[in-house]
Amino acid sequence: MEFSIDHLGIAVKSLAAAKSIYEKLGLSVSPEETVEQEKVRLVMVPVGESRLELLEATSDDSTIAKFIAKRGEGLHHVCLRVPDLAVAVAKLKQDGVRLVSEEIKTGAGGYKYVFVHPQSAGGVLLELVESQH
Amino acid sequence: MEFSIDHLGIAVKSLAAAKSIYEKLGLSVSPEETVEQEKVRLVMVPVGESRLELLEATSDDSTIAKFIAKRGEGLHHVCLRVPDLAVAVAKLKQDGVRLVSEEIKTGAGGYKYVFVHPQSAGGVLLELVESQH
Repeated sequence: MEFSIDHLGIAVKSLAAAKSIYEKLGLSVSPEETVEQEKVRLVMVPVGESRLELLEATSDDSTIAKFIAKRGEGLHHVCLRVPDLAVAVAKLKQDGVRLVSEEIKTGAGGYKYVFVHPQSAGGVLLELVESQH
Repeated sequence: MEFSIDHLGIAVKSLAAAKSIYEKLGLSVSPEETVEQEKVRLVMVPVGESRLELLEATSDDSTIAKFIAKRGEGLHHVCLRVPDLAVAVAKLKQDGVRLVSEEIKTGAGGYKYVFVHPQSAGGVLLELVESQH
């Protein structure tokens, strides 16, 4: 399987409140973890081959706090695993798809990612990572 | 695997525009299909064990048209497969989780579903279906 949903990022006001529904359904919820550079505290909820990432802002100027101020709580982004990220990005650029940043970035864990602008993806902030990750 | 993401419902203004990014990535997109009672036209994009459902309104009074008028294009709902829907719903009710309707409904294809109110799920409209479906 080459394509899959890696995770859904969900912006929430309170991790404690938001994770409760998943615990009630019988899903496992990871311990809370803080990512300083993103100014978020998060928990992961594995669901089949995917994960739900519940994201709570740790500062008013974090991306998640700004998102909630503007749109309210809810789905923030969708992350898909693709077979070859470099090939995918080259193809998208060639076809005039709008990316959030022009180059592939490397995350904290060493994984590579790129964001497609919601304008080019039906209003969805779409993150792409490589399947091997 | 008992839990998984069944599908993500994405409200879009134009199926033709929204499906293009997934075709460019090399994913297969189903033919367009109209669901009269829901007043939507849709395509399915299988992604691993899940699907993306792109939903375009066929009428201004459809749920999808109202959603877009209020929030713009984007993610409309997340559907999870759970091992036993009746057990899950009984548990959620007992715990005071807010459901959109009090009882389990049966969809066009005979599948059973329930919606959890976004207020009880971190701003996400959460649909639950049974894994066997």
